[in-house]
Amino acid sequence: MKQVYFDNAATTPMRKEVVEVMTAVMQNNFGNPSSTHSFGRHSRALIEQARKTVANSLNCSAGEIIFTSGGTEADNLVLRSAVRDLGIKNIISSKIEHHAVLHTLDQLAEEYNIELSFLNLDSKGGIDTNHLKTLLASDKPTLVSLMHVNNEIGTILDLQKVAELCKASGALLHSDAVQSIGHYPINLQQTPVDFLAAAAHKFHGPKGVGFAFIRKNTGLKPLIFGGEQERGLRAGTESTHNIVGLSTALELADKNFEAEHQKVKDLKSYFMTSLKDAIPAVKFNGYSGDLEKSTYTLVNVCLPVNAQKASMLLFQLDLKGIACSKGSACQSGSNQNSHVLNEILEEADLQKPSVRFSFSIFNSKDEVDYVVSVLKENILSTVS
Amino acid sequence: MKQVYFDNAATTPMRKEVVEVMTAVMQNNFGNPSSTHSFGRHSRALIEQARKTVANSLNCSAGEIIFTSGGTEADNLVLRSAVRDLGIKNIISSKIEHHAVLHTLDQLAEEYNIELSFLNLDSKGGIDTNHLKTLLASDKPTLVSLMHVNNEIGTILDLQKVAELCKASGALLHSDAVQSIGHYPINLQQTPVDFLAAAAHKFHGPKGVGFAFIRKNTGLKPLIFGGEQERGLRAGTESTHNIVGLSTALELADKNFEAEHQKVKDLKSYFMTSLKDAIPAVKFNGYSGDLEKSTYTLVNVCLPVNAQKASMLLFQLDLKGIACSKGSACQSGSNQNSHVLNEILEEADLQKPSVRFSFSIFNSKDEVDYVVSVLKENILSTVS
Repeated sequence: MKQVYFDNAATTPMRKEVVEVMTAVMQNNFGNPSSTHSFGRHSRALIEQARKTVANSLNCSAGEIIFTSGGTEADNLVLRSAVRDLGIKNIISSKIEHHAVLHTLDQLAEEYNIELSFLNLDSKGGIDTNHLKTLLASDKPTLVSLMHVNNEIGTILDLQKVAELCKASGALLHSDAVQSIGHYPINLQQTPVDFLAAAAHKFHGPKGVGFAFIRKNTGLKPLIFGGEQERGLRAGTESTHNIVGLSTALELADKNFEAEHQKVKDLKSYFMTSLKDAIPAVKFNGYSGDLEKSTYTLVNVCLPVNAQKASMLLFQLDLKGIACSKGSACQSGSNQNSHVLNEILEEADLQKPSVRFSFSIFNSKDEVDYVVSVLKENILSTVS
Repeated sequence: MKQVYFDNAATTPMRKEVVEVMTAVMQNNFGNPSSTHSFGRHSRALIEQARKTVANSLNCSAGEIIFTSGGTEADNLVLRSAVRDLGIKNIISSKIEHHAVLHTLDQLAEEYNIELSFLNLDSKGGIDTNHLKTLLASDKPTLVSLMHVNNEIGTILDLQKVAELCKASGALLHSDAVQSIGHYPINLQQTPVDFLAAAAHKFHGPKGVGFAFIRKNTGLKPLIFGGEQERGLRAGTESTHNIVGLSTALELADKNFEAEHQKVKDLKSYFMTSLKDAIPAVKFNGYSGDLEKSTYTLVNVCLPVNAQKASMLLFQLDLKGIACSKGSACQSGSNQNSHVLNEILEEADLQKPSVRFSFSIFNSKDEVDYVVSVLKENILSTVS
């Protein structure tokens, strides 16, 4: 059966070169990077080379990159330590952040005496900058946590502007950049963000590895205590093969950026045009139909199907070999409504199925044609 | 040059079968295990099969196994949540635990109002059971954290006895079993331990994955918050290839246990006999010279070399292609004295170099002969 994977915001297939280099590391470089003998030193060299590759990509120092088990751990490390070790008393975020941020903030609010504010959003999920300015006027030590690219509706944050506002008011800025790193260039010499979180499996790297960018001298302590790995900020024997996989995937993403960015953007554009032609009543949620204000990797579509039939739609698509997502990237197993769409859609549209289609370099226009034809067939049969 | 890896307590080379199955997973099963479509379901099935394999090995329920990024994270998860969520006010441990436990306890003592007690040790690193009984008489909610097999000197804890004492007094018991799981059978239906921590890379599996055993209904909350992965106890997209690698490595360890255990035990025994013959003044630290009271995988040797020459010894061994460890498994990069040996050795012996040699199925008697001959040559030239 034909299989089409349009769920690349949930996770991506690995690049062949990444699998190859990881297999070689597992075969040849098993030493513990903390060991001083030659077996250990070879692993240490691989990890420090990987760190330099990541730092080069983001234009920061190697010492500012802390490898973690993924984006979620990186978010947790930054947020917990900001409150516990840096004395943050005031956190400004938004209700359409990833659960790795939202649930961590909920937990921190239970444990610590912090004030938690959520920015007003416009009807498409953009943040209200004036509201941010007002909230930044607080005289408490403040952290702002806003994702760079929203995982469900693709909205791109103006990171430069927000970072400058935060800097001007003395607030720290964390950005969950899990959907942007490996897809958009970030220059940390230009953009005064303090912390970032990234995950390799969102850019054709392995699952189970990511990193936090932590600007020098910020003063965090670990989330995971023990050995002195990662300059004392993250204990636990390093996953050498995963770390090398991450850096290889990022290096290839950077190297091929222009061509791959264009290819995926063209696919999204072609998908939107074809779908609109086939089913004129579709709507694109948030800014996801806007090729400038949302990421080129995904579109979130509200389909004109009534509530009774809606629940069957993803099931029908799956039967036809089509992988896409209802709800958030990592929550596609859940039957609850998306917390992001709940914030921005009107009641009538919340009753209809919204589906996220997300693309990668491994997709093709033929796949778009197939998916659009299956959608058309399903929607028409459902509406009738 | 000849290369001999006698540092298997720091980390182990991966089994060929483990690398193969992980490579296949990376190539063929990239779906996000939280996705409901077929790509996701295939990954989910692999993870749940892995969980069953681990649970079968330990004779517990699959729901009691929580995959983590390694042993250190598992220790942190259990210890932090025991204090924060279970209201533990009194922790009993020992000063020769791994830093993943000791440094986490230090941090928890800073953050929470807990009482921290360390068991008296005998001169070989065995715990004082009467002292444990006395400390267990506390009427505060108590957690005991004692490692199953010490990573530096190999002492085996009588887990059954300690677990029964803890159970009888209503205390919870956590055991860092990073050096024992995959090397010793544990039957959790017989042994009433509440929590365990394990790491795949100590039994020929991949780095960057481990698990916590958490006995049902204990009531912990996550260390890492976010998505609902691992039954809500550990957020973050699962590292499918690493998890499958872990379960494959454990399954092979169990399957080959009798023969492999005997082979490695024979190597340790042969090493001790040969070394004692070659350098009669060597001492075996702690119980590590005792084949019953210490693990068959390692021996910790105090070498008769004066202080000035001691610092060169590991360097000399490394030049000869021999990998072994001074200090603890994960701390071999450090120049500080081992915190474990500091607790048990007399001052005169602390001035001499102590070296841990740790063995695996991939070692041979020829390698032992080579290492003993190099040691003999070095020690004699140094003494003279």
